[in-house]
Formats: sequence, C-alpha cells, structure tokens
Amino acid sequence: MTAYKKPTTQELIDGILSGDRFKLSRAITLVESTHPKHQQQAQDIIEACLPKSGNAIRVGVTGVPGVGKSTFIEALGQHLTAQGHKLAVLAVDPSSSISKGSILGDKTRMEKLSNNPNAFIRPSASGETVGGVARKTRESIYLCEAAGYDVILVETVGVGQSGVAVHGMVDFFLLLMLAGAGDELQGMKRGIMEMADAVVINKADGDNKKPAEQARMNYKHALHLFPAQASQWTPQVLTCSSTEGTHIDLVWSKVEEYVSLTKENGYLKQQRQEQNAFWLKETIDQRLTSLFYNQEQVKLKWQELESLVLNGKLSSFAAADQLMQIFENRLNHSSSSAEGSK
Amino acid sequence: MTAYKKPTTQELIDGILSGDRFKLSRAITLVESTHPKHQQQAQDIIEACLPKSGNAIRVGVTGVPGVGKSTFIEALGQHLTAQGHKLAVLAVDPSSSISKGSILGDKTRMEKLSNNPNAFIRPSASGETVGGVARKTRESIYLCEAAGYDVILVETVGVGQSGVAVHGMVDFFLLLMLAGAGDELQGMKRGIMEMADAVVINKADGDNKKPAEQARMNYKHALHLFPAQASQWTPQVLTCSSTEGTHIDLVWSKVEEYVSLTKENGYLKQQRQEQNAFWLKETIDQRLTSLFYNQEQVKLKWQELESLVLNGKLSSFAAADQLMQIFENRLNHSSSSAEGSK
Repeated sequence: MTAYKKPTTQELIDGILSGDRFKLSRAITLVESTHPKHQQQAQDIIEACLPKSGNAIRVGVTGVPGVGKSTFIEALGQHLTAQGHKLAVLAVDPSSSISKGSILGDKTRMEKLSNNPNAFIRPSASGETVGGVARKTRESIYLCEAAGYDVILVETVGVGQSGVAVHGMVDFFLLLMLAGAGDELQGMKRGIMEMADAVVINKADGDNKKPAEQARMNYKHALHLFPAQASQWTPQVLTCSSTEGTHIDLVWSKVEEYVSLTKENGYLKQQRQEQNAFWLKETIDQRLTSLFYNQEQVKLKWQELESLVLNGKLSSFAAADQLMQIFENRLNHSSSSAEGSK
Repeated sequence: MTAYKKPTTQELIDGILSGDRFKLSRAITLVESTHPKHQQQAQDIIEACLPKSGNAIRVGVTGVPGVGKSTFIEALGQHLTAQGHKLAVLAVDPSSSISKGSILGDKTRMEKLSNNPNAFIRPSASGETVGGVARKTRESIYLCEAAGYDVILVETVGVGQSGVAVHGMVDFFLLLMLAGAGDELQGMKRGIMEMADAVVINKADGDNKKPAEQARMNYKHALHLFPAQASQWTPQVLTCSSTEGTHIDLVWSKVEEYVSLTKENGYLKQQRQEQNAFWLKETIDQRLTSLFYNQEQVKLKWQELESLVLNGKLSSFAAADQLMQIFENRLNHSSSSAEGSK
C-alpha cells in the first residue's frame, strides 16, 4: 500500500478553484462529516470558496420514487453538457434512515452522466435532520460553484420537509410527475404543487403519450387557479420523455427563460438574499431550540407538562411560559454577573 | 355617574361558565390586553376554562377582501342558530396596522347576527405579530367554548401568514372564493389552496351563477390533482349565494360530514393534539428568538454580519455559528455558576 497523504486545507481550496473533481469530492466529504476537526476545516474551505460561488443556475428537481428522476437528470445532463455547461448533481435525502439512502446511492443509475467529464454527481447527503441535510447541501452548492459548475441540480423526493428545504436553496423548482390523476402524489407534502416553477410530466412516450398530454392540460388549468408568483413567472407545465429524449431541450429553455426574466426584474437576486436570510434565521432557530431542550431543568419540566398540553389540560401558551421562565432564569443570572464584572 | 366595580377573576370565570356574554366579552378584553396585571388575570381565567373547552366545531373562514366573508358568515350564522347551535365568531387580523382593523371592526356588517342572542361576535383581535394574534385568538376560542358556544368561526384574510396561523387552530379550513379564474388570489399566501378542506365559490347568484358553476368545476379538477389529505377527507368544492341563502345548508352539511369522518378515524383528535404541540413549540421558538435578538452583544454582531450574509460574502451557517457562540457563552457562564452552587 502506498502511504496516502491527506491534502491540506489550502490544497483543497486550490484544487476546488482549479476544478479538481477529486479535491472537490474530498471537501464535500469534510462538509458532510460530523467530526469537529473536519467541520472546522470544512468551514475554512467554504468561506474561501464563497466569494467564487453564486454564478450557477440552481435547479431543484423533486418527485416521488418511480417518477424517473435519475433518468430525467441523466437526459437533462447529457443535453446540458452537450451545450457546454458543467453540471453538478446533489441530492437531499433526509429520509435516508428509512429509504437507506436510495436516492443517488447508486451512481450506476446515471451511467452515462457519471462517466461524463463535465458532470459531477454526488451521492446523497443524508443526516438526522432536514436542517442538517440542508446545510450540507447548501454548502456543497457553494463548493461546486467555486469549482466552475454552472448548473447545479438538487434532487429530492418530495416527501416530508425535504421538498420545502430544497425549495429554499434553488432558483427554479421543478416538480416531476406522471400521468395518473394525482395518485402518485400520495405522501407528498401539501403545498408543494404551489411551489413549482414548472411541472414536468415524465414518461410521455408510447401509449403514455396521450394520458401525459391530458395530464399536462389538467395541471395547466390547476396551476392557473393558484395565487400568482412574486417572481411574475407563470409556472409552466410540460411533458417529456427522458428515455426518448423528447422535450428535454424545451424544459431547459423554460429554465433559461425564467432566469432571464428574474435577472431582469431583480427577483433572482432578491430570492437568493431571502434564502440567505432564511437559512441564517433557520439555523439560529434550530440551535436555540436544541440549546433549550438540552437544559436539564427544562427537560424535566417538559416531561411534566407535555401530556397536559397535548390533551388540552393546560394551554400551550401557559406551558411555554413556565418552560421559558426556567430557561430565562439561567440567562438572567448570567446577565447580572456580566453586569457586575464591568 | 354610577361607580363601576370591576368583576373579580372568579366572577368572570363563573360568568363565562354560565354563558354570560358580557363577562365573556370582558374576559376576552383581558386576554387581548398587554398590561401585565391583565395578562395574569387572563391566564387564570383561561386555565380555569380550559377543562370545559374543546367541545365546539372550529371552522376557519379565509378569503380576500371583497369575497363576501361577513355576508357569508351572517348567512351561515343564521342557518346555524336556527338549527339550535350557539355560534361565536372571532377574527384574526395581523395586518390591521395597514387595514386599520377592517375585518369585523364594524359589527354592523353582520347586522342580523349581532342581534341574535345565540351568536357572539367579537371584533378583530389585532396585534404586532402573527404569533401574538394567534395566541389571543386561540385563547379566546377556549373561553367561547367554555361559555357554551358549540360552533366557532375564525375569520381571516388569507394574506401573509394569517391564513396559515388560522389553519393551525381550526378543525376545518374553508376557503371562500369568487368566480374569476384566480385573479382574486393575488396576494394570498401560496400553498393556501392546498390547505382547504372546502373551497366555496360565493356570490353564485343572478348572472354570476354560470361562471360560479364553471369555477366550481375548475377548482374541483384542480384539487383532485393535489396530494391526498392525512384526514382521508376529499376537499369539497361548492357554490353558494350568501345573499340569497342558497347552498348555505349544503356547506354546513359538508362540515358535519368532515367532523363525523374525522371523529371516527381519529384524525380530529390527532389534529388538535398536533395543534397543541405546534403552538407550544411555536411559542417557545418565538420567545427564544426574541430573547436572542434582544441580547446587546448579539445585536451588535448581527449588525456587523447581516449584510455580509445577504450578499453572499459569508455563509448563513458561519454567521449563525458566530452569533450563537456569543449567546451560548452567556449561558455557559450561568451553567457553571449554577454548578458551583450545588
């Protein structure tokens, strides 16, 4: 065996900025690591890459298992790289403890794309919490952008909160569907339809062409009834066949139209700023919450109050008051001692 | 002038439980007050009423200004009281600083209902934050239920977060609409369509009857494409005329069907428990956040970091880390001094 020397932080940064896929991959592994030493190193890399990031089009692709996400991404990826784009594919899979990391867990699902020098495919970032997974994915986006990838696809199943999390980190949100009157939406998060910038009916080939076209008309009418988007964009409904490669170019031209519209009207920039603000707030929320629930005295009181609240014996607000009092008492002690040391 | 003696807490509780409208009204005023003394009194009343609450059907009615909410509620209220129900109408209006409390601000908008002895109409609970308004409304629901009202209607415009907040405190969520291809949805919160248990097309009378029926068909098809509800309920789409009183009975029979279905399959109870848990979590979140942002040192650092984050010069997560470190340092001081005093 040859001795393997771990690359330094600076070597990783330089590697990423020069487009070295191996170093990029290694850095994302650090981002995904829970080891404190790795986290510090990851943070240094991220902050160094951040100024070079932000130049890609970020597209979320959501759809339930079986809708053909990987075949679609493979077809779209071939189209994009043929046009000269450099494509990175990331996945958010917070449910991987259940699905055993099925999304992108197997690179061979995108055989052509994974052998394409202009595509970088990263198997699923999984983790305990949606927040944790979202953080890793968002930070990986920065690294990919710094490495020169100009289109980032973020893939997720639309179950639970993952679709919402992905919506909060992309420019364009694409919902992949099948013809079949909405049955396949079972288990998807409610509200996800109204987030879509495009609904794409996949597998519009062979006998399925006609039902797919019918579904397209149905969704088109349905989306028309939704509240208008702040972006001034009209959500598009399209059909495509990932296996035959039809309309894949059309899907991408819609993304480009969206980007051009929202660059001009300022929404693209505004949305990214709002996303930055959202994740700042969200991260602080999560950290505050875990700080709170990890306080021993809060935990004890919580156990005492929880079932009372659930069963309507004590109001949520009264219980929150009691719990907060315990927590704030600790803070106040701290404040007064800090005051004294002035 | 006659001297007015303020009722004691116990007198208010007894009054509410015996169905005294004046005392109920007075207690809700205490709930809505920001005065610390009133808040303590309100809390005592709420906790005393809580065991007697929970027996009403709670219905949220949302729709943009002009859709005819008060006429609809007036018609529905007449129908309900004629059936022997006792009805309370509450309003959530977080935008009242802009709209000057237009919702229900004027009781004369529901002339018949406000003179009906079996109806209790409470003008808008307004406030600075959605959370604050939601709390007041939720606590007012308890008081109304303890006073014997068995149907509670919570009215709101569906703008901003208010629709979402109301959705989190009712059993059944009714979206009031007009025929007109969704234009009236401008400004409504995206995702609100997918929350509806019923979409009711109002003003289905005269020349508007045909377009209303067309709208009903359109919405019916649209809702059919949505993810299925955890309640196993199929969202209903109906037309009605509040001025002519047509289909008002049909709307209510759908609410009753829903209640009977979800009582049987356990969803009604489960949803209320989830709502209790949600507001407990939500209240703690809000309190933690305000505690955090009110720390002087956090504020200073925030000012330094905010624009860096918004403009993508510093990652949201790195900024959150820095801010949390400042906050946690104070807590840790407190923990160690508490440790020492053991």
